[in-house]
Amino acid sequence: MQALDLAGYMEGCRELVLNELRRIVPADTKYGPILYDLIFEYPLREAKALRPALCIATCRALGGNLEGVATSATVLELYHNAFLIHDDIEDGSELRRDGPTLHRRHGVPAAINVGDAMLALALEPLLDNMRVLTLGKALRILSTVSDMARESAEGQAIELSWIRSGAFMAGDREYLRMAHKKTGRYTFLAPVVVGGIVGEGSSEQIARLRLFATALGVAFQIQDDILNLSGTRTAIGKEQAGDLWEGKHTLVLLHAVRNANKRERSRALGILRKPRPSPALRGRTVHARQLLGRLAARGEVRPDAHHALRHALARIEHGSRVKTRDDVAFLLDLIDRHGSIPHARSVARRFALRARKSLRQMAFLRPSVHRDFLEALTEFVVERDH
Amino acid sequence: MQALDLAGYMEGCRELVLNELRRIVPADTKYGPILYDLIFEYPLREAKALRPALCIATCRALGGNLEGVATSATVLELYHNAFLIHDDIEDGSELRRDGPTLHRRHGVPAAINVGDAMLALALEPLLDNMRVLTLGKALRILSTVSDMARESAEGQAIELSWIRSGAFMAGDREYLRMAHKKTGRYTFLAPVVVGGIVGEGSSEQIARLRLFATALGVAFQIQDDILNLSGTRTAIGKEQAGDLWEGKHTLVLLHAVRNANKRERSRALGILRKPRPSPALRGRTVHARQLLGRLAARGEVRPDAHHALRHALARIEHGSRVKTRDDVAFLLDLIDRHGSIPHARSVARRFALRARKSLRQMAFLRPSVHRDFLEALTEFVVERDH
Repeated sequence: MQALDLAGYMEGCRELVLNELRRIVPADTKYGPILYDLIFEYPLREAKALRPALCIATCRALGGNLEGVATSATVLELYHNAFLIHDDIEDGSELRRDGPTLHRRHGVPAAINVGDAMLALALEPLLDNMRVLTLGKALRILSTVSDMARESAEGQAIELSWIRSGAFMAGDREYLRMAHKKTGRYTFLAPVVVGGIVGEGSSEQIARLRLFATALGVAFQIQDDILNLSGTRTAIGKEQAGDLWEGKHTLVLLHAVRNANKRERSRALGILRKPRPSPALRGRTVHARQLLGRLAARGEVRPDAHHALRHALARIEHGSRVKTRDDVAFLLDLIDRHGSIPHARSVARRFALRARKSLRQMAFLRPSVHRDFLEALTEFVVERDH
Repeated sequence: MQALDLAGYMEGCRELVLNELRRIVPADTKYGPILYDLIFEYPLREAKALRPALCIATCRALGGNLEGVATSATVLELYHNAFLIHDDIEDGSELRRDGPTLHRRHGVPAAINVGDAMLALALEPLLDNMRVLTLGKALRILSTVSDMARESAEGQAIELSWIRSGAFMAGDREYLRMAHKKTGRYTFLAPVVVGGIVGEGSSEQIARLRLFATALGVAFQIQDDILNLSGTRTAIGKEQAGDLWEGKHTLVLLHAVRNANKRERSRALGILRKPRPSPALRGRTVHARQLLGRLAARGEVRPDAHHALRHALARIEHGSRVKTRDDVAFLLDLIDRHGSIPHARSVARRFALRARKSLRQMAFLRPSVHRDFLEALTEFVVERDH
């Protein structure tokens, strides 16, 4: 299977999901421009539709039909986008898919509320599933989605408590467990399980699909962390090294910190514990700085005082301890010197290989474009550059 | 029925709900102290448990039993608390039930995530309902809750778009519609409908219960707005006049703005459109102010320059246009002079009376402590001082 087909397969799923979304989301505009319109903002940006594609491919490789799975696949995409909106606020992210994050564009209140509306809108289609699928299937899907949402919040809580503790001491295993709960669970496991339920996979088959999805998810997440550090901002549509600015725990960073010498580690931890500069404060001192400059020029403020006050103003805007570009450059250099990216790549490849092996043993997945797509994914997750 | 009984009835429901919550929420502490522990933070503060009490009373007055309704009543309380946490962030509220709001105490990221975890945890018990109740009842409850969550987000979106437009021109009817969607729907209508479903009310009976709940909810919300303006901070455990600081639309405020003369209205709108002082910036200029004072004392900054720079620093922290205490005092005075509180009281009483009348015509509700509780509520909602 060629890369082009993989992109085409996902693009087809994306169109289907967008159409389904337009059916699920009320067209009502009486709630102002800050509710239902905003639901489409992230999905309409350059998005891969990876989750629905996984769900649909699994279902169809098992012999299930598209009609039965379309709604559930769309609900997974709805959840995904709700999580993105809330996560972007929690992480203080500024860019998402090459545009400002929703809360940067529309404010935190509207962004929280849109996410909540999306979580609410996801329920009705899952109840409607009972009419299209059997009652039993619909209930198992509901239960899968409910577990997924709970585990995702648990994964997020683990990461938030790590950030709070400032230790950056998690080992690879702990990191992978957190990443699986926070992201892998809803990005890979839930779509594959839901596809398996609709496609009438046996419980043993679904158990094997779970292992495949978990390994694939780990490989995907590590590659995401690597791409975040790469040179161009456009690679994944987020800020360059945004994870370092946000002080996120990644396999790459944890490896670098673990392998640093005592002096390096102490400096790295000092940097990582500092917050990033706050957008809320950005530019707030412009007026005072200009005034100070004029007063100094007229001699009403003496040179030493001018210098001290300028420094004090800089501290207001940037905080006495916020991360600087030099700080982030130090971390990037540390990562480079300790070979943390090659380490991460090799872990990712190991998991991608495990996923491929387990897929090849699943004789119950019919030879088809859907099965080919799943196989191609095991390469895509670690080779992709976006 | 005496006031003491009403409080006792709600207290009984509160204990039941707390026990049920302890069953629903995982005891797991491996997600750090910032997930499941936090779910109990608002419920354990002084809370009325009004929603579960309404749900239980309706069910039992119809002849339904406590076992059948306990889980659903608890889920409603879980939703309520999740909404409170997210709303407090959206509104920039600082106090809730006599303590700091969750995001003020634990940070916005943890607070958003806890709310999301609560929404996720609410699903499983509603699916479990199928084992305790009939499938049909469980599905109708799920559907009621899904509508409730969606409408609540819609109500919130209406209010956010009003705040954004800064018009403050909604009439009483528009306000009441927004308040019903945002609060009344999940505080009164959903609990009563869910109680009605479990208690096996007919669709005609449930339709009449809906009218009762809607009227009661409107009366309750207006009283809430009145209490928010009252003198003591402890009355409802929020900041005094917090609604005015937040620039919220209330029946009271809209009446005052509508009845103000041109000059007053222009000033009131100017104030209402200003943001409240940001806690993020509070205290950030202390160091610079102290430095400036020392430099001025040593003559390194001339008096006029000192004055200008002090003013510039104040603008950084408070913004050039944030609300002041004088601003809020002006609004309180405007409300006082135009008799807006008596106006609101009379509207609230009209709705409370409507609720009482409709209740008295419901012969299908059995004479019982549960029915007495519902009747007592029609007085409590407008007479309460907390």
